[in-house]
Amino acid sequence: MGEFDLIERFFKTRFALKRDDLPLGIGDDCALMTLAPGHQLAISSDVMVEGTHFFPDVDPQTLGHKCLAVNLSDLAACGAKPKAFTLSLTLPSIEEVWLEAFSKGLYALAQLYGCALIGGDTTRGPLNIGITVFGEVPKEQAMLRSGAQAGDDLYVSGNLGEARWALLGLMGKMTVPDARLQAIRKRLETPTPRLELGLALRGIASAAIDLSDGLLGDLGHVLKASQKGACLQVQEMMQSALLSKDLSSLPKDEALTLMLQGGDDYELLFSAPKSKAQALKVLAQELKLPLTVIGQVTENTGLELLGAEHLLDAQAFKSLVSFEHFG
Amino acid sequence: MGEFDLIERFFKTRFALKRDDLPLGIGDDCALMTLAPGHQLAISSDVMVEGTHFFPDVDPQTLGHKCLAVNLSDLAACGAKPKAFTLSLTLPSIEEVWLEAFSKGLYALAQLYGCALIGGDTTRGPLNIGITVFGEVPKEQAMLRSGAQAGDDLYVSGNLGEARWALLGLMGKMTVPDARLQAIRKRLETPTPRLELGLALRGIASAAIDLSDGLLGDLGHVLKASQKGACLQVQEMMQSALLSKDLSSLPKDEALTLMLQGGDDYELLFSAPKSKAQALKVLAQELKLPLTVIGQVTENTGLELLGAEHLLDAQAFKSLVSFEHFG
Repeated sequence: MGEFDLIERFFKTRFALKRDDLPLGIGDDCALMTLAPGHQLAISSDVMVEGTHFFPDVDPQTLGHKCLAVNLSDLAACGAKPKAFTLSLTLPSIEEVWLEAFSKGLYALAQLYGCALIGGDTTRGPLNIGITVFGEVPKEQAMLRSGAQAGDDLYVSGNLGEARWALLGLMGKMTVPDARLQAIRKRLETPTPRLELGLALRGIASAAIDLSDGLLGDLGHVLKASQKGACLQVQEMMQSALLSKDLSSLPKDEALTLMLQGGDDYELLFSAPKSKAQALKVLAQELKLPLTVIGQVTENTGLELLGAEHLLDAQAFKSLVSFEHFG
Repeated sequence: MGEFDLIERFFKTRFALKRDDLPLGIGDDCALMTLAPGHQLAISSDVMVEGTHFFPDVDPQTLGHKCLAVNLSDLAACGAKPKAFTLSLTLPSIEEVWLEAFSKGLYALAQLYGCALIGGDTTRGPLNIGITVFGEVPKEQAMLRSGAQAGDDLYVSGNLGEARWALLGLMGKMTVPDARLQAIRKRLETPTPRLELGLALRGIASAAIDLSDGLLGDLGHVLKASQKGACLQVQEMMQSALLSKDLSSLPKDEALTLMLQGGDDYELLFSAPKSKAQALKVLAQELKLPLTVIGQVTENTGLELLGAEHLLDAQAFKSLVSFEHFG
């Protein structure tokens, strides 16, 4: 099976669709796209590489899901509505069973959010999956990293740390009971992009980012872009919905480290003025998704972790607050 | 040097720019883009992999040029004006000298065509360079592969075959005198995307494609999409500007095979009604770029290579006309 058969069989036919805003899809030199009046296009690219982002024996169906999910998560962070994506697939060989499963996982998520595959490239080489995703957002309404204001509350959706715990468990670096691993590895392998939340936060959040590098790292990006600092209430975080039932079975210092430094959560971190607190309470109920206040944005740059010193030994505390992104 | 320093140093700073149509570039979850009223966005993705598309010891500056050039060539084939691109860079290690040269080659070409770097991803793994490029084209004016009409003339810009000859020379599979290799390897390593031509062909060409796979293969894509056939005047091609001075030093059968099957030319192949012949003559003079008629589009599907049997032995002729893309 050559490149062209491959594209036809696993991608062009399965993903075929007719949409007025996408007059030309897979199969020409370029795809063509129109934008709704008064809207901007939001664009993000993410690459996943075997050995760096996933294990060689990863289930290809979950891999198809995750590759698109991490890109959709970037759209969510901007408050953009998914529209389309391109797929650049570098494969060591053409294995039909693998491709069938990969394309199935990819398609299921794309379908769920109306995100059309409009082009890309397939080539031979070490496994590498690049996606560029496109979303639409009304002009001036995209949420940026740079909008956090002193006094804003900082919020995080869902719970944190399970994905990293699953990863460390699979790598044999942490102990995870088998039954628990089956539950938490879903967070690692099939994350849910918080698109409904992202759209709802337009006009509410002052800044937003998706949590891919871990809470402290990504908070660092927001604070740097906004030229602000933050104070986090760590003990309150440990008693909130941020700490999942599974994670609460761990010693507190381990759970806290996973929550603060674990990556691959794909929850949203955002700031919002206190005047939006009630609206966010209602939104959390509507979406059935916890939105937890973790602290406040401060005028002084730098990061304070209130209460962390009671949960971590001195060495671990020092290592957390000197985390590279704050270096 | 971490990922973030890397992006800052070699990409964000060098490529920084302010443009009204690109309100947000590198450094947030998404880039933001607006479209001129009445325009569509043309999008194309191409990946280049070490060992598949370039030699491990390739000059990184020419590699930077080529990775963007092959993407711009897709915009040219659609008649789209370059606007921006994203870069997904997978690197085995961070080598500053290599990155400096790569980014320099990339920047020079991007600058020449006003194509802004607006985002992407950098990650660790076997060398893999993915670019997604964006261009603008007035609604309904993009040139597609599917528009060729029976009776249209088929044109090719520039000359063909030098890039493949250089590749085979560098691989030791064909003999190329040293002085000649220095000249022709430019065609392989720093191809010129035919953007001026592509823009000028809007309203003139009925179908267009850029020549990356080789003339016969890419002609096959146009004919398949248009549900047409073609008849090529091979002997006339061999006496035209299509055959470069360098290539004419080869035996005729070798030169012809390179012209018809060699890839990486990045010239444009297009069809146009005979009524546009005079306009195309004038255009060729204006652009100082030969535009050679190679044959005609036919209602009958299939391909006729008139005169090729006099230039090739029976085996080579059979191999050419049964070329996979026509299978």
